[in-house]
Amino acid sequence: MTVVAGGASAARPQLIRAINEQVLLDHIRRSGPVSRTELASLTGLSKPTVFAALGTIERAGLVHATGQRTGVPGPAAILYGVRPEAGFVLALDVGHEFLRGAVADLAGTTRSRLSVRTKAANAMGRVQELADLAAKLLTEAGIEASQLTQTVIGSPGVYDPKRDTLTLTGRLSGWDSPAVLPALRERFGSSLMIENDVDAAALAERVHGHGQEVDSFAFVSVGTGIGMGLVLDGKLRHGAHGVAGEISYLPFAEGSGSDVRDARKRGNFDASASAAAVVRAAKRAGVRRASTAEKVFAAAARGDAIAAAVVAEEALMVAKVVCTVITVVDPELIVLGGGIGQAPGFLEAVIDQVRVLAPVLPDIKATELGTDTVVAGCLAAGLDQAWQHLISRISPPT
Amino acid sequence: MTVVAGGASAARPQLIRAINEQVLLDHIRRSGPVSRTELASLTGLSKPTVFAALGTIERAGLVHATGQRTGVPGPAAILYGVRPEAGFVLALDVGHEFLRGAVADLAGTTRSRLSVRTKAANAMGRVQELADLAAKLLTEAGIEASQLTQTVIGSPGVYDPKRDTLTLTGRLSGWDSPAVLPALRERFGSSLMIENDVDAAALAERVHGHGQEVDSFAFVSVGTGIGMGLVLDGKLRHGAHGVAGEISYLPFAEGSGSDVRDARKRGNFDASASAAAVVRAAKRAGVRRASTAEKVFAAAARGDAIAAAVVAEEALMVAKVVCTVITVVDPELIVLGGGIGQAPGFLEAVIDQVRVLAPVLPDIKATELGTDTVVAGCLAAGLDQAWQHLISRISPPT
Repeated sequence: MTVVAGGASAARPQLIRAINEQVLLDHIRRSGPVSRTELASLTGLSKPTVFAALGTIERAGLVHATGQRTGVPGPAAILYGVRPEAGFVLALDVGHEFLRGAVADLAGTTRSRLSVRTKAANAMGRVQELADLAAKLLTEAGIEASQLTQTVIGSPGVYDPKRDTLTLTGRLSGWDSPAVLPALRERFGSSLMIENDVDAAALAERVHGHGQEVDSFAFVSVGTGIGMGLVLDGKLRHGAHGVAGEISYLPFAEGSGSDVRDARKRGNFDASASAAAVVRAAKRAGVRRASTAEKVFAAAARGDAIAAAVVAEEALMVAKVVCTVITVVDPELIVLGGGIGQAPGFLEAVIDQVRVLAPVLPDIKATELGTDTVVAGCLAAGLDQAWQHLISRISPPT
Repeated sequence: MTVVAGGASAARPQLIRAINEQVLLDHIRRSGPVSRTELASLTGLSKPTVFAALGTIERAGLVHATGQRTGVPGPAAILYGVRPEAGFVLALDVGHEFLRGAVADLAGTTRSRLSVRTKAANAMGRVQELADLAAKLLTEAGIEASQLTQTVIGSPGVYDPKRDTLTLTGRLSGWDSPAVLPALRERFGSSLMIENDVDAAALAERVHGHGQEVDSFAFVSVGTGIGMGLVLDGKLRHGAHGVAGEISYLPFAEGSGSDVRDARKRGNFDASASAAAVVRAAKRAGVRRASTAEKVFAAAARGDAIAAAVVAEEALMVAKVVCTVITVVDPELIVLGGGIGQAPGFLEAVIDQVRVLAPVLPDIKATELGTDTVVAGCLAAGLDQAWQHLISRISPPT
């Protein structure tokens, strides 16, 4: 419970000043350029308090005067906004086939963006490719590495801060080796954050996609791999051991594409419902030219009855995941993503099955964001972290 | 984000007074009898502020002087505690075989407690039995119905406040009829709260059991029916549609005891893993005298290999539920409850299977609370609600 100091109580001026500065920064960050009078009315703080606190954060270089409000009665008011150059964030997405990345400034504007096909044969090669990509991104953005406030890597797997390990990294061979984290820190500094790639995509959905409108949703990604990001009360949940959303370990036995060796490594459900499992199931059923999941879906769309049966079975499995999430946490919304999750007609097929299986039918939508969602989510996480870091520098906690 | 008013800002004295009163009440409720000086040091409020606020809540009858602190230097300090008679809570548990209930005062002391075997043939008969039980509880507690601040009924099913409906009531035939809620309100007043029975048991676990030590846990109940209560960040989660924890709808196809008619009514997984399903599976497998799940478990403990196989299958199904909860939300702790969940040796059998299935192994414990957990949870929920109600009466929100 918050203790609000009454007039006669022992106030703690330093703490109160720090909190006021954070409140102002938070408003400026969210509302864009605003005047001091507007800040006073938005926050409920007095004008002298606003003037003093704004002075501190302006001197710290976090905000600056961006212009004047004109066209309203009275003298023109100076508008204050975030100083974009006060910090920079580097986001990298380490995928199975592609490495993607972007650099954004503290105002959230993207300064550079790149993606490259990975050629690395092992984990250390991949670390080097990430470092090379980062160097190119910095050059394009026109900044030095020393200007980076925060770097975030979106990666398959689970980072456990208690044990400082990266595990369950699925298809990225060798990526869970103990040598990887030190090698990454050597290149990217000790403040490096690792975010699960599907969790990052869920964050992007929260900031830019369907997740903007609700307080709780699950982002279910089905494609090369399978995963989920869970947002409750507006916050991404990693869980007590970092495995919240690791739905590849759902104990579903079915799925004709199941493969015991795969199941041990990446979870039972991944082995039954990932893109590779769809291809295996299609080949077994006799679908012709079923070399990729995309081709199986295309054959089904053209009227191939056997391919359609494989796609229907896949929709049933994803519907079971959705039903599971409903029965455990019951979010307002479920968003499907990934190559299979976004395939044409797949959403409708899943909804039809959820209607039969689940005790209620929540909103279910397909993501409308593109391939850069992991990078976008890492930028969002990195910007939050950068803000916290910069704020803590001006007002050390008492 | 909380706005803390600085010295120069426009304070809102009435709101600050109300919040100070709540802070004091909260401390008195949690810490037991305390002096005004202790309250000032616990809350950070000034002594004049504490004296004024305490005066208001004492005049409102919520706290009173309970004695004096002696044996310390200086003049003896008056101790203030909750006035138990300031409010009363009635809790009722409507089960398939038993109705249970208790009355507690505002200090949380149980004033009466009863349980009766239900004889009602239909929903309206059950409403009448609950009213009769409530009357007896009030008589034993020596209070009038008008002295009740809050009544809470723990019931199977999901209460949806948006639509004001009670659904998914499982084995309680007719309990989801639209006539039940109005009939209950006629007997128990309009402030009546309905809490899912397993959610209530989870609340009891939070207040009195293993859940005291952690911020997130799942209480999984397996017995006559199947259900789960989920506590995250210390708060019970009902979900967006009230169905969080309705694990009887988990889409598990397996289980030799499955029954299609049951599955439609109570969820697929309930039909596979409830006590009745264990009995069905045992009879089918040829276990002799398998009239109750308890007898099947006893036969397995005596070395009956067929019964042991049925129990092992049941442990596997419960392990799958546990694994599902881990992969979706990853709580710190899982607590097993219900007749089957608490059966000797069952916990260990479940843990052995979870170790194989799940990506991590969290703490898993069997509940140590008895048969009155639903009533205890309803009392806890009712006391919180009663406090809110009584506080709002002395300090109306501004």
